[in-house]
Amino acid sequence: MTIQTLGLIAGAITSMAIVPQVTRSFRTRSVRDISIWQPLLLEIGMILWLFYGVLINDMPLIVANGFSIFCNTLLIVMKIAFRETASPGEQSQIP
Amino acid sequence: MTIQTLGLIAGAITSMAIVPQVTRSFRTRSVRDISIWQPLLLEIGMILWLFYGVLINDMPLIVANGFSIFCNTLLIVMKIAFRETASPGEQSQIP
Repeated sequence: MTIQTLGLIAGAITSMAIVPQVTRSFRTRSVRDISIWQPLLLEIGMILWLFYGVLINDMPLIVANGFSIFCNTLLIVMKIAFRETASPGEQSQIP
Repeated sequence: MTIQTLGLIAGAITSMAIVPQVTRSFRTRSVRDISIWQPLLLEIGMILWLFYGVLINDMPLIVANGFSIFCNTLLIVMKIAFRETASPGEQSQIP
């Protein structure tokens, strides 16, 4: 296995990691327990990773981050769209 | 700004992205809406990224993934530990 292959496998796994979260959120339409800061910070960071990948001409970094940016956008949109479906007692549940 | 610096900033942001989720889960003790597959797949993928970073001797990759592996471990532990605090109607809420 070449180093490039290892990077591609690592990139594929970390990029696809968000898919179960996106499908779960879409299915349950419940996003109360999710912090919007995670997808938001990931989005910003991954755009920088994408630039970094382009600058060092590293294909695994470019492909992995391009896909993740797309998925994180979906999650951010759902976090905002499904916000209203949160239970009314949300605030009181935080000790 | 050097390319290395860009990679370090990108790594810092994506690594810290999980911190708000970890603190939110710890504070609310509610992890129902979180898919365990995301931190689990991230964990596996980031261990591979760490290897990749070591092999190509890329410091941003090594530092960023080392920290993220630690945070994802915390989130996985909480997802399991706080599982019991989920509302009894959890299953029925999934259409």
